Amino acid sequence: MNSKKSGRRRFLKEGAALAGLALGATRMASGETPDSEAGKASPKDLHAYGERSRFETSARLGNNNRWGSNPKSGVPFVYGPLTPLQDSIGIITPAPLHYIVSPPGNEPPDIDPQKHRLLIHGMVERPLIFTLDELKRLPSVSRIHFLQCRGNGDPSRPERKMPNSTVQLTHGLTSCSEWTGVLMSLLLKEAGVKKGASWIVAEGAEQSMHFKSIPLEKAMDDVLVAYGQNGEAVRPEQGYPLKLLVPGWQGINNVKWLRRIKVVDQPYMGRRESTQYPEMRPDGKSRWFQVEFGPFSVITRPSGGQRLPSRGFYEITGLAWSGGGAIRRVEVSTDGGKTWKDAELQQAGHRKAHTRFGLAWNWNGEEVLLQSRSTDEKGEVQPTVAELARFLSVPAEWFKAPGGIVGNFNVIQTWKISPDGSVQNALFS
Amino acid sequence: MNSKKSGRRRFLKEGAALAGLALGATRMASGETPDSEAGKASPKDLHAYGERSRFETSARLGNNNRWGSNPKSGVPFVYGPLTPLQDSIGIITPAPLHYIVSPPGNEPPDIDPQKHRLLIHGMVERPLIFTLDELKRLPSVSRIHFLQCRGNGDPSRPERKMPNSTVQLTHGLTSCSEWTGVLMSLLLKEAGVKKGASWIVAEGAEQSMHFKSIPLEKAMDDVLVAYGQNGEAVRPEQGYPLKLLVPGWQGINNVKWLRRIKVVDQPYMGRRESTQYPEMRPDGKSRWFQVEFGPFSVITRPSGGQRLPSRGFYEITGLAWSGGGAIRRVEVSTDGGKTWKDAELQQAGHRKAHTRFGLAWNWNGEEVLLQSRSTDEKGEVQPTVAELARFLSVPAEWFKAPGGIVGNFNVIQTWKISPDGSVQNALFS
Repeated sequence: MNSKKSGRRRFLKEGAALAGLALGATRMASGETPDSEAGKASPKDLHAYGERSRFETSARLGNNNRWGSNPKSGVPFVYGPLTPLQDSIGIITPAPLHYIVSPPGNEPPDIDPQKHRLLIHGMVERPLIFTLDELKRLPSVSRIHFLQCRGNGDPSRPERKMPNSTVQLTHGLTSCSEWTGVLMSLLLKEAGVKKGASWIVAEGAEQSMHFKSIPLEKAMDDVLVAYGQNGEAVRPEQGYPLKLLVPGWQGINNVKWLRRIKVVDQPYMGRRESTQYPEMRPDGKSRWFQVEFGPFSVITRPSGGQRLPSRGFYEITGLAWSGGGAIRRVEVSTDGGKTWKDAELQQAGHRKAHTRFGLAWNWNGEEVLLQSRSTDEKGEVQPTVAELARFLSVPAEWFKAPGGIVGNFNVIQTWKISPDGSVQNALFS
Repeated sequence: MNSKKSGRRRFLKEGAALAGLALGATRMASGETPDSEAGKASPKDLHAYGERSRFETSARLGNNNRWGSNPKSGVPFVYGPLTPLQDSIGIITPAPLHYIVSPPGNEPPDIDPQKHRLLIHGMVERPLIFTLDELKRLPSVSRIHFLQCRGNGDPSRPERKMPNSTVQLTHGLTSCSEWTGVLMSLLLKEAGVKKGASWIVAEGAEQSMHFKSIPLEKAMDDVLVAYGQNGEAVRPEQGYPLKLLVPGWQGINNVKWLRRIKVVDQPYMGRRESTQYPEMRPDGKSRWFQVEFGPFSVITRPSGGQRLPSRGFYEITGLAWSGGGAIRRVEVSTDGGKTWKDAELQQAGHRKAHTRFGLAWNWNGEEVLLQSRSTDEKGEVQPTVAELARFLSVPAEWFKAPGGIVGNFNVIQTWKISPDGSVQNALFS
C-alpha cells in the first residue's frame, strides 16, 4: 500500500498536468463539529481565538509611502511597518509583528484560498496546477528562517543615523518565523525540468504582479512554497495563502501571494529587479543579483531609547542571523570594539535564522559603547563601517550620503550608554 | 567592567533581599517614539498589530464547566478549550489557539505587569522579590516545550470514544510554544537554598490561589519562570505576566500568574494535588506525584472527521512528544499495527517538545487502520491499550469506564479510513 521507495521522486501520477489533475479537486475537509460554527460567528470569542493582554502594546512602527504619511512623526519613513526588536523575546517573531514592505500595488489582496491556484509551467515536461489542499497533501517541511529587507541597516537612511533611533528604526526590517510548506525542488521534480533551464520566475497575485527571477540552483536547494507561518496560515501581509520563501536571500525574492512559477533559461528583468535592485554605487558601477545576506547582529537590550535604571547586573542580549547559514559565534564589546567577549548562543544551529545571544554584564555607571559582532558557518565576520567600505572599495563617507550605497548593510551597530543610563544610537561614533 | 566569571553563579549583590532590592525599582523603559502612541490608540490598526486572513477560521473548541455550557453540542466537554490539532502546521501552536484548562476560580486575572511581583522565600538565605523588569535583566533562556493536561487522551472520556470525534477532541489538550524566561535554578541559587530543603511550592495570583508542590531536584533541573511565549508576552490564559514552566510534567504543575515560590522540606498537599491528582484506580489503590509524561503521538492529517477526496498520494503527518526528552523515532502503520514503517522526523532534537513526523503514502481506496507509535530518547515506546493495561495491572476494560483510570494516557490512536474516504475515530477497534 505504501510506496515510500518511489515516493521521494514522484508523488503525482503520469499525466498529472493541466488537463487532468491526479490529486482530485475536492477539498479534504477539516473536521467540523457542532461547536465549530460558534467560533466563526464571534470573532471576539476569546475561548475560540485568544488575544494578548491589554497591557501589552508592542507594535509595528511606520508605513511606506503608499500607505499614508506619519503626521505625528518627524521621521521620514521609507520602509515599514517595522518589527519592534526592542521587545523581541527568543527567536520567533509573532506573526502580528512581522515587518512589512509593500511598494505601491502590493497591498494584500483578499484571496479566497479555495479559489487560489499555483501554476508551474515553462520549460517543464508536465505543467501543473495545484490547489491549496493539493499542496497540503504533499510531503511538507517546517523550518525556522529569517526574512529581511535589503534596506535593513542602511546607513544612508536618516533614521539609521539619528541619535534617538531605536533598534526598531535601525534594524526593524528583519523577522523570523517557523515556515511550513513544500520544497520547490519537489514541485520542480514533479513537473520535470527540461534540459537548458537555468532560472525560475515567481509571480504574485497582487495588483502589480511583482515577479522575481531566481537561479534554478537556488530553487532546487532550500526554497519553499510556504503555506504556514508559526503554526497557522501565512499572514495576509506576508502572502496569504502562498508565499515563496528563499532562505537567506533579500526580501524581494520572497514573492508573496504566489500564483505562478515559470521555468526559463535566463533571468527576466522585472521592473523592480532591473531598476531598484542592482547594487548601484555612486561611482556608476553596479552589481546584479547580489542577494545573499552576510552575517548580521544587533543588541536589542539594552538598545536605543531604553534607560538603565541603576548600576549592577544586566544581561546584554540580541539577535544574530546570516544568509550564509548558521551563526557560529557572537562577540560583544563594551568598549567600542577594543576588546571582545564571547556571548552565549541560544537555540543555535537553525540555518538562516535569528539566533539569540546573551552575555552576563555588570554596569559600573560609566559611559559604554556597546557592540556585537557575529560569525557565520562560512567563517564570514560582520564588518565595521570602515571594513565594509574597504571591501566595496568605496570611501566610508559614502555610507553617510542619502542613497549613497545600495547593498548588504551588515555593519556593526554601536549603542552608547551614558552615565545617566540613557542608551543612544551611535553608528558613526 | 564585565564579570562573566562570577556571573553564572550570583547576579545580585549581597543583601539583595526584601528590604533593599539591588536591581533598582525603576522600569527599563521601552524605546518610545512619536509614532508608538498611534499603535496603542487604535487596536484595529493592522499596520501596528496584524490579524489572520478572514478566511481562516481554525478555533479552539469547548469550554469547562465554569465557563458556561455547550448548548449547540451534544458533547459533554469536561476540559478545554481544546487546540485544533487537525489544523496544526509545524510544531509551534499559535498562542491564540493554545489549549486552556481553567477550573473554577482560575479565570485569567487582569494583572498590570508593572505592579506584579514574584516572591521567593521559605528555606532560603536571602528572600527575594522581583518585578518583571528585574527578572528581564537576568540571563534568559528560550526553549521549545509542549504543555499537556494530564487528561489528554483519557480513554474514559466520552468524546474519546465517539466514532465521529476529531483529533481536537481526542488529543487537543496539548500545545507547544517557544517559552522564554529565567531558569528557576538561577533564582534559587540567588536566594540560596538552605540545607534540608527538598521541595518548592509555587503559587498563582488567581482568585483560587492554586499552588503546586514540585521536587527541588526538578526545580533545579529545567524549570523556567517564563515571561515569553512565541516571541511575545505569555498570554493571559497561560499565566500573564509570569508562568511556571515544568517541562514534560503534567499541566497542573505549570502554575499560571506565578507570584510566589516557597522553598520547603516536604510537599504541601494542595487541594487539587491531594484530591484530584493521585493516580486513583478502581481497585482503590493510587499513586502520588506521578507527573512525567511518557511518549505520545497522534496522526493529525488524515484524522477523524476529515475526508480523503480520492485515491492517490497523501502525506501522513502528525505530532509526537514525550516528557522523557526528545523523540527518537515515530513509526506509522496503515494496517492496524500489523506492520510498521519509520516516518521522517522534522525539527527533531527539541526535548519535551512537539516533533512533526511525516510519511509518504499512496491510498489504494481500501479500508485502512492508521496508527502511529513514538519512541523517546529513554527508549520508552508508546503502548497499545492492552499494553498499558498490562503495565498498570488492570483489565483493559477499565479504560472504557467513565472515570475508570486516571493516569498517563499515551495509548496508540487508531483512525479508520473507509472506502468512501471518510476518517473516523477507532480507539477501541
